[in-house]
Amino acid sequence: MTTPEEAARLDAEDELAAFRDRFVPITDESVVAYLDGNSLGRPLRATADRLREVVAEQWGARLIRSWEERWLELPERIGDELGRVALGAAPGQTIVADSTSVCLYKVLRAAVALRPGRDELVTDTANFPTDRFLVDSVGAELGLTVRWIEGPDDVAAVAGPRTAAVVLSHVDYRSAAIADLAGITRVVHERGGLTVWDLCHSVGSIPVALDADGADFAVGCTYKFLNAGPGAPAFLYVNARHHEAFGQPITGWMGAADTFGMAERYVPAPGIRRALSGTPPVLGMVGVQEGVALLAEAGIERVRAKAVALGRWVLDLADEWLVPLGFTVASPREDARRGGHVTLRHPDAERLSRVLIDNGVLIDFRRPDGIRIGLSPLTTGFTEVRAAMERIRELAG
Amino acid sequence: MTTPEEAARLDAEDELAAFRDRFVPITDESVVAYLDGNSLGRPLRATADRLREVVAEQWGARLIRSWEERWLELPERIGDELGRVALGAAPGQTIVADSTSVCLYKVLRAAVALRPGRDELVTDTANFPTDRFLVDSVGAELGLTVRWIEGPDDVAAVAGPRTAAVVLSHVDYRSAAIADLAGITRVVHERGGLTVWDLCHSVGSIPVALDADGADFAVGCTYKFLNAGPGAPAFLYVNARHHEAFGQPITGWMGAADTFGMAERYVPAPGIRRALSGTPPVLGMVGVQEGVALLAEAGIERVRAKAVALGRWVLDLADEWLVPLGFTVASPREDARRGGHVTLRHPDAERLSRVLIDNGVLIDFRRPDGIRIGLSPLTTGFTEVRAAMERIRELAG
Repeated sequence: MTTPEEAARLDAEDELAAFRDRFVPITDESVVAYLDGNSLGRPLRATADRLREVVAEQWGARLIRSWEERWLELPERIGDELGRVALGAAPGQTIVADSTSVCLYKVLRAAVALRPGRDELVTDTANFPTDRFLVDSVGAELGLTVRWIEGPDDVAAVAGPRTAAVVLSHVDYRSAAIADLAGITRVVHERGGLTVWDLCHSVGSIPVALDADGADFAVGCTYKFLNAGPGAPAFLYVNARHHEAFGQPITGWMGAADTFGMAERYVPAPGIRRALSGTPPVLGMVGVQEGVALLAEAGIERVRAKAVALGRWVLDLADEWLVPLGFTVASPREDARRGGHVTLRHPDAERLSRVLIDNGVLIDFRRPDGIRIGLSPLTTGFTEVRAAMERIRELAG
Repeated sequence: MTTPEEAARLDAEDELAAFRDRFVPITDESVVAYLDGNSLGRPLRATADRLREVVAEQWGARLIRSWEERWLELPERIGDELGRVALGAAPGQTIVADSTSVCLYKVLRAAVALRPGRDELVTDTANFPTDRFLVDSVGAELGLTVRWIEGPDDVAAVAGPRTAAVVLSHVDYRSAAIADLAGITRVVHERGGLTVWDLCHSVGSIPVALDADGADFAVGCTYKFLNAGPGAPAFLYVNARHHEAFGQPITGWMGAADTFGMAERYVPAPGIRRALSGTPPVLGMVGVQEGVALLAEAGIERVRAKAVALGRWVLDLADEWLVPLGFTVASPREDARRGGHVTLRHPDAERLSRVLIDNGVLIDFRRPDGIRIGLSPLTTGFTEVRAAMERIRELAG
């Protein structure tokens, strides 16, 4: 069942198909399929329009007055909405700010400070470089030992009375394997430690239930499945139960209790706001706001259902066309364990990726031998995916 | 000589007058004068146009390919140009990234790490809150003592063999007093310490000569005199002589030697690039690029000359109209010691500021009693300033 008719049938039944028109069209006719929305989501038309409006009407006309009128609250306002729509987070626990790296540094430092006397950090060797680098360098900076594990499943074996924090990605950036956020968090808590979840590859793609699952800290980017734009601000979540006690080291004026009070000493703002440092990046947040609004309209459950269907479709096509050519499937075949992309391995993946990109199949190469096929349910269709897979078959054959 | 004719003469002789047309017009007719460009510079028309272009053509059409084609280099490319046009910095020492707070945290940590065994930081009590907060909290974090001084002139009295770093603003955010960057840096170096200069209120307003003056580290924002937009990315300078040895604690993938190598351990990129952490904020950088380009066209020396003339004009008008009403001048009267704004003190400044803003005179209130009159040479004219001062006289009279 990998026929063009089947693709057409899947497209016809796709409840989210019309959302594609909400995006700026790809005018480059050489593009067969954009399958890298998990690296950089496409721009919404609304973002382009709102940017124009914010520049002309808010920045250009209201000028400095826009800060008090609306901009100052944006980190929390957009954060709350993101929490509601995508993270399962009640208001007051999520802010939009900085980059993922900076957010991760802040919450990692915050987590360690909440567990004095514990001298170990845990992360896995397959984690994204930034996460590994930060665990390593924060560990070195604070005199903690890093316990490296091979994957999230190994947490139970190493977490113990010395564990300060466990830092994991919810969805593996290479394999798309989904970690058991609830179960791992429970185990870490039983041992007295805290969890820091990197949601970069899950936010906007699969439902997350941070409050219900008892998560402590989380961070993520907005430029993948939220389509917020290249280098758009990241987000950071701190569970309300830590608000009284948590702190972070980058103590700028925006995180102070009275930002314009110009106080003699830093007094942290109550709640999540103390996680802020510098002036909020207003233009960058426009894309976040629009991306979250579109997701609210589509609904994360429908997005997830389509991501699963697209993933299955890629696996079916791969099994029929590509496995015979030497490809192997690196992503979990079980739907419930697979995130929003499918990774195929091939011995010649690096060269082949360049050929594919030159031929309009915009996938992503991930070392050492992965071709990552990103599936963005709001912009990707089944016929399009089939055309791309056909092209891969031709070019790899 | 505070007549309308004199204002008209000054405007007629103003070589930079035409630059005003390069900005998005203020459509709000209630605005008498925008004198808060030192909090938030106005948007350039070019920024509005380029944002549209970047969204549609780079992000929307080239999609992920834009990262390799052009975006990855932006932090250094714009940084180099900013260094050339405004900072007196040779290429390879300046990057555009993060917020000022995050940049300051990074360079402060870097500076301290370069001076092991020294256990004091120096800053002044009049410094901007973020700077004071960060000196305080980084000091506490690393077990250093903070030596508080009353102003930059007191550095010589306290800097000594225990001084790791001296953190100062080049232009005081309240009084606009210019610190002796070259002289203070020399003194600190004689005592074996390092300098961290906050250029927020000087960049794009007065020429800075970081290389010639031997500065070690500097940071600054781009949303004031560079007109880059609300919360636009900040910049960070590290003198080349520190490139071999310096490090910073937020070790994200963009600061690694091989960003896409996904290496096992963090190996810092050579040179200034190791100061990067997360993914560069592309949309935010558009405004920086355009702001720097316009400054290059105008020339920082001409901008400075006009800022001085505007400052003198404000002082003349204040002396004639406002001093008799109870105002005092809080900024240096000597041109060479005064930055790009003039601050007037008034016992009732807080209430009066609100009245002024409600009446279209967009100034800035700074506690406890300062009314800050920002002078942006690329957008501000002499007749406009006169009208604003006249309005202040009426409303305070």
